[in-house]
Amino acid sequence: MPLKPQNENSILSRISARFRSSRSHAAAQSVSLGIGDDAALFRPKPGFETILTCDWFLEGTHFLREKHPPDAVGWKCLARALSDIAAMGGTPRCFLLSLALPETHTGRWLDLFLGGLSRASHRFRCALAGGDTTCRREILINVAVVGEVPAGHAVLRSGARPGDILYVSGSLGEAELGLQLLLRSKEPAGRKSSVTRKHLYPEPRLALGQWLRKKGIASAMMDISDGLSSDLPRLCAASSVGAAVETGRIPKARIPSPLLKQGVRPLELALNGGDDYELLFTVPPDKAKVLPNRFQGLALTSIGRITRDLDLVVLDEHGQARDFTAGGWDPFRKKL
Amino acid sequence: MPLKPQNENSILSRISARFRSSRSHAAAQSVSLGIGDDAALFRPKPGFETILTCDWFLEGTHFLREKHPPDAVGWKCLARALSDIAAMGGTPRCFLLSLALPETHTGRWLDLFLGGLSRASHRFRCALAGGDTTCRREILINVAVVGEVPAGHAVLRSGARPGDILYVSGSLGEAELGLQLLLRSKEPAGRKSSVTRKHLYPEPRLALGQWLRKKGIASAMMDISDGLSSDLPRLCAASSVGAAVETGRIPKARIPSPLLKQGVRPLELALNGGDDYELLFTVPPDKAKVLPNRFQGLALTSIGRITRDLDLVVLDEHGQARDFTAGGWDPFRKKL
Repeated sequence: MPLKPQNENSILSRISARFRSSRSHAAAQSVSLGIGDDAALFRPKPGFETILTCDWFLEGTHFLREKHPPDAVGWKCLARALSDIAAMGGTPRCFLLSLALPETHTGRWLDLFLGGLSRASHRFRCALAGGDTTCRREILINVAVVGEVPAGHAVLRSGARPGDILYVSGSLGEAELGLQLLLRSKEPAGRKSSVTRKHLYPEPRLALGQWLRKKGIASAMMDISDGLSSDLPRLCAASSVGAAVETGRIPKARIPSPLLKQGVRPLELALNGGDDYELLFTVPPDKAKVLPNRFQGLALTSIGRITRDLDLVVLDEHGQARDFTAGGWDPFRKKL
Repeated sequence: MPLKPQNENSILSRISARFRSSRSHAAAQSVSLGIGDDAALFRPKPGFETILTCDWFLEGTHFLREKHPPDAVGWKCLARALSDIAAMGGTPRCFLLSLALPETHTGRWLDLFLGGLSRASHRFRCALAGGDTTCRREILINVAVVGEVPAGHAVLRSGARPGDILYVSGSLGEAELGLQLLLRSKEPAGRKSSVTRKHLYPEPRLALGQWLRKKGIASAMMDISDGLSSDLPRLCAASSVGAAVETGRIPKARIPSPLLKQGVRPLELALNGGDDYELLFTVPPDKAKVLPNRFQGLALTSIGRITRDLDLVVLDEHGQARDFTAGGWDPFRKKL
C-alpha cells in the first residue's frame, strides 16, 4: 500500500537494499561496482567468454497483473532469462533489471516482486548489477543477464549433425497446462500448487547445460521457450539439418481428466506450449549410448534423430507422418 | 507499409540483415556470436573490466510516436545508453536491443528506426550482439550496452574531494529547449533543424570521457541525463561532499526571443532540463590549472567547486544563495 509519493531515487534505494544481503554470494564477487553509479562494472574471468542475453517480461503479453503473484513475476523474469545461459552450457554471473511500474505498485507489489527476484538471484547465483526504473501505467520488465563460459566451448544451436540423437529434458507442456489452469481458476495462484509451479516458478536447467558442455556430450543445444514446434525448426535451421521426431516418445504432461474432457490434448501442449524452459539437445550416436536416463533426477529422453534431409518429419504412434507446423509461442501471432 | 503478416523470426531476420553490413567494424570483432542463438558471446579484452548499463526508451514516457522521427528514436535509444559508458571513461563494445512494436510499425517505421540505430552503432563503434522482440500496442525499447575500461580505472561518481573544481562539457538546457520547440511545433521534426538536433540526436561524450580518464584528470564523473539539479546531488551523495555552484558560470542554451517572451528561462532549462548527456566532472585544483577550455571543440566550463560541507549552495550573479531543489527529470514525478 504505497501511501507516500515515491521517486526514482527511493525506489532504487529499496531495490539495492533488498539485494545488499545477497552481495556475499560468489556471483556477486564478479560485480566490482553495482547499483548507484552511471553503470555497473563486471570483472570477467580470464579465459572465459561473456554470454549476453535479454528478455522482455511484460504485463498482458507474458503475465497478467490479477493472475500472477508478484513473487512469481519476480522469480520468473530472471529464471527465464537464465534459461538462455543454461542453453549455452554457461554459468550465470549478474543481471540488469529494467523495471517500469505504476505508482500504485511501488509498495507491497514491489516488495513481493523483489522477494521472488532475490530468491531466484540467490538460488541461481546471479547478482543484481544495476538497472533502470521508470513510471508507467503498465508493469514492464526487461532482464539482461551476463554469464560466462570457457572461451570457445559454448554449446551452440548450429552443431547438430545428421545421425545425432535428439533429446529433451523433463517433460513438455507442463507450463502451458499450468497457464491454462491459472486462466480458468477464479483464485489467484499460490506458490504451492504443484500443477502451476512450472508455469510460475520455472527452473532453468543450468546444472544440466553445464554438465552436457563439460562432458562434451551435446553437439547442439537450445532451450524450449516457445514450444517444441517453434524451437526445433530454429535448431535445425541453425545447423542446416532436418529432424524426425516420434510423437510417442515425447515426454508429455499428465492432463487432469476435466481438462481432457474439455479437449486439452497432451501432445498439443507438448508441441505448442510455451514456457517449459527445458533443454533440447543433440548427441552423437556413440555418446548417446552412455547417456544416462536421468541427470540429478531430471529425465533425459530421446525423441528422434537429426536427418540430412532438411524436412521436419513427425511420426505418430502408427508410424504415420503428421503435420508439424510451428504452433508455439510467437508474440507476433498470439497473445497471452 | 506493412501489408503481410510479420512474425518474430522475420523481424529478427530484418534486424540482423540491417546490421550485418556493419559487422566489419572493430567493435564487432569482440562479438564472437551475434543474433540467432540463445544468447550472444562477447570476448572480453584481457586486463579490462566490462561496463554494463541499460536504459528504457518508451513511447509516451521518453518519446512521442507522432512527434519523434523513427530515425531519431533509433539513434537516441542507443546514444543515451552510451552516455553512461562515456561517464565511466569507457569504450563501447556491443549492445542488446529489446524491441516491442505494434504490427503496424514492423514495416516503414521499423526500417527508419533501424536506419538511425545502425548509424549510431557504426558511429560509436558499438555492435548489435542480440536482443528480444515482441508485439505490443505501444512502442517499447530497452537497450543494454556493454563497454570496457582498463581494470580499476573507471571514473566513478564517488571520487570527488573538497576543493575539487566542478566542470561541465558543452552547454546545458539545449536538449530541453529542443523538446519544447518540438512539442510546440505542428510539424514533425526534421533531422536538420539545429535547435532540435541535441534533443533528437544526442552525442555521447565518449572521446572526452576516455581522455579525462586516460590523463587522470577527473576525480569523479557522471553524465547529466536528468538535469544538473537532479544529477549533481547524486554525484555529491556518492562522494559524501557538497558543492557550491555559480549560476552565472553555467553555460546555457540561447533561447529564441518568442520563447523568452513566453517565460522560458535559460537558467531553469540549464538546471532542470533533461537529456543533455553532457559530462559533469570534478578536477583537483592542480590539474584544473592545465585543463584546456575546449576539448575537440567542446567547451569545458568550471561552474563551481566541491565543498566539505554537505550542502548544495547555488549562488546567483549577485552572490546571493538561491534554492537548489532537484527539479530535473524524474520519471516518478513528471511525464514527457
